[in-house]
Amino acid sequence: MKCLFCDIINNEVPVFNVWEDDDFLAFLDINPINSGHTLLIPKVHTEDVFNMSDDYFKKLFLTAKKIAPILQKATRAKRVGMAVEGFGVPHAHLHLVPVNNGNELNPEKAKTATEAELNNIQKLILKIKKLSDFK
Amino acid sequence: MKCLFCDIINNEVPVFNVWEDDDFLAFLDINPINSGHTLLIPKVHTEDVFNMSDDYFKKLFLTAKKIAPILQKATRAKRVGMAVEGFGVPHAHLHLVPVNNGNELNPEKAKTATEAELNNIQKLILKIKKLSDFK
Repeated sequence: MKCLFCDIINNEVPVFNVWEDDDFLAFLDINPINSGHTLLIPKVHTEDVFNMSDDYFKKLFLTAKKIAPILQKATRAKRVGMAVEGFGVPHAHLHLVPVNNGNELNPEKAKTATEAELNNIQKLILKIKKLSDFK
Repeated sequence: MKCLFCDIINNEVPVFNVWEDDDFLAFLDINPINSGHTLLIPKVHTEDVFNMSDDYFKKLFLTAKKIAPILQKATRAKRVGMAVEGFGVPHAHLHLVPVNNGNELNPEKAKTATEAELNNIQKLILKIKKLSDFK
């Protein structure tokens, strides 16, 4: 079955990547709740986060834990919220959203970003990521 | 410093418990987004989920993975959403919310539940949990 996130993993659909390793890919949501809103996905197609093996599931969240402080620094947000809902694209994905106030982690606040906005925040995130790699 | 969730862990504030082990406690949110909305908290006070040790953090999410299917069965929801935001009570907590449609994992949809509603769903969750313990 055709899957948008599998196409993204296979480089068939361009995205604003912010993280990649052997198991996971993270890229900017083009309809962000806030600037820096990132989607983290497993490279192996799984419909539901809760159906992943314990091992892969643990790795997914530990990867989110590595990415969150980078997003927080890049956006200067108070915190990074995390959400899994699972409707929309049927490929497990985790939302990482820089937030500054309660009730901000609200899917109804999502708005399409311009390419320039996505480009700018991607650059900033990759810069912070590079600096954290040297620590 | 006074912490509501520490008081709950110390049995100083009554809650509708649905899960407990040595490390974590889960109880019904009294302002649920949907019936069965559960808060999972670490017993050791930590302000932010992302500041937990990797080991404790992994355990937290693996515990959520155990509880989610029980909540899903008890509520007959399509999925269980998961959210971490971190404003409100300054003690790390993870929301587990039975959801049936996209955009339902929205904090603005939260409404105070009656004691009878909380009692009923707690009974159902504990019954399903008991059955799953025997599997």
